[in-house]
Amino acid sequence: MNKNQLTEAILKKKSYLCVGLDTELGKIPPHLLNEPDPLFSFNKLIVEATSDYAVAYKINTAFYEQYGKKGWESLERTLEIIPDDCFTIADAKRGDIGNTGDMYAKAFFEHYSFDSVTVSPYMGKDSIQPFLNYSDKFTIVLGLTSNSGSADFQMLQTPEGKLYEQVLSKVASWGTPEQLMFVVGATRSDLIKQIRKRLPDYFFLVPGIGAQGGDLKEVSLEGMNSECGLLINSSRGIIYASKDVNFDEVAAANAKELQVQMQQFLQLKNIL
Amino acid sequence: MNKNQLTEAILKKKSYLCVGLDTELGKIPPHLLNEPDPLFSFNKLIVEATSDYAVAYKINTAFYEQYGKKGWESLERTLEIIPDDCFTIADAKRGDIGNTGDMYAKAFFEHYSFDSVTVSPYMGKDSIQPFLNYSDKFTIVLGLTSNSGSADFQMLQTPEGKLYEQVLSKVASWGTPEQLMFVVGATRSDLIKQIRKRLPDYFFLVPGIGAQGGDLKEVSLEGMNSECGLLINSSRGIIYASKDVNFDEVAAANAKELQVQMQQFLQLKNIL
Repeated sequence: MNKNQLTEAILKKKSYLCVGLDTELGKIPPHLLNEPDPLFSFNKLIVEATSDYAVAYKINTAFYEQYGKKGWESLERTLEIIPDDCFTIADAKRGDIGNTGDMYAKAFFEHYSFDSVTVSPYMGKDSIQPFLNYSDKFTIVLGLTSNSGSADFQMLQTPEGKLYEQVLSKVASWGTPEQLMFVVGATRSDLIKQIRKRLPDYFFLVPGIGAQGGDLKEVSLEGMNSECGLLINSSRGIIYASKDVNFDEVAAANAKELQVQMQQFLQLKNIL
Repeated sequence: MNKNQLTEAILKKKSYLCVGLDTELGKIPPHLLNEPDPLFSFNKLIVEATSDYAVAYKINTAFYEQYGKKGWESLERTLEIIPDDCFTIADAKRGDIGNTGDMYAKAFFEHYSFDSVTVSPYMGKDSIQPFLNYSDKFTIVLGLTSNSGSADFQMLQTPEGKLYEQVLSKVASWGTPEQLMFVVGATRSDLIKQIRKRLPDYFFLVPGIGAQGGDLKEVSLEGMNSECGLLINSSRGIIYASKDVNFDEVAAANAKELQVQMQQFLQLKNIL
């Protein structure tokens, strides 16, 4: 799925919602634990219930890795049932040099056919280039994250702005908005405004709405560009909204509630 | 395996060699491709041939991930046949916040029983803490890496030294040398001397010997502390030294050659 197709999906569904499939056995409705592949069964019902309201699904690979090869199998099966009009993100936060970077890129873009993968910038250009070499895929680089630890290093002053600002500007010079996005945490909407000014054309993947305290309206209005340019993620607020048998209906209702708000913000910004 | 046991193994084997199992189907001897699990068969022969000379094995997870669940199976089987007196490293360069960090730590320390895992520092303390919570395991944090891209961000000036110096000092304040190590690239031995002065007691995992141009003698003499405190990794120079049927004997010879040099350096520094 390329940038135009993603923007078309946003306009069609009137939504820039990304649903995070942070699926764990301990948190899914107990009645699913008897299924042969509970993680997959849960994800399938969640995807079916929410795909009218979501334009993207983010699979947090850690949650699957913890179960070893069985977890990777659940991930693979989940990926297969995500509809073609939804953008898929491997939230893996990988990053390694040349040869090893190539392997990671191959794993996520070829073995699993993800549209995108999240990458950590600490090792610099030759750790990001292997992903950028897939010009029909998206590399999503950590810019400013939404956790408290982002203050430890990302906020350090460098000769040309804070470290995260250096990361955003330098990495943006390595790839176009057609193949590169940034993770921009939602807990500081004042910063999102500045970051959007710095990078008018790139998509931002925004975690931190809901549980982490980001405000959907502020983030949306400050962070959008003229064609939206945002994917806002919600995980727990949707997928774990209920543990009852009808959990998928509750998930759908919560996703729809976000979609309705997003539609308003798209209208406010004259994008719809 | 704890710090004392690792140091004992170094003294016993007169070696601080770590063998990197960067195993790929395209590079292993062709006759192994007929085996049911070629990656595992290759690793088994390499480990059996080199474990007299190596104190650690580093499994680069990217190489296994690229083959999906079959790759994770090979990784799991490999881990089972590494002898108990060898330290095991998951070179995974993970790093994510609280909940997700917990999953990664659980994956590598519980599902797979690695002694250690490599972690990227970009997201700060709450992305490293989940690993440090396993106080009987080692968290190996990227400090200064050996690739050209390390200049992009790690070398940026901050109010208190370069970014990598800030990372080393700050992360060291979060964990003791009994549970924390650092990745320190070997291509700049002048820097290793300074880093050893900054962190006298921590183990350093040093990639970049051989193919990446690091000098074993310089790095050893500048980087050792009073009880060694080094693990120096070699991957391609050992495991891909030959594609012939006797590749394991060639690997053993190359590992032994490094061990003999390491023994000299340990003696030069009065550790043996």
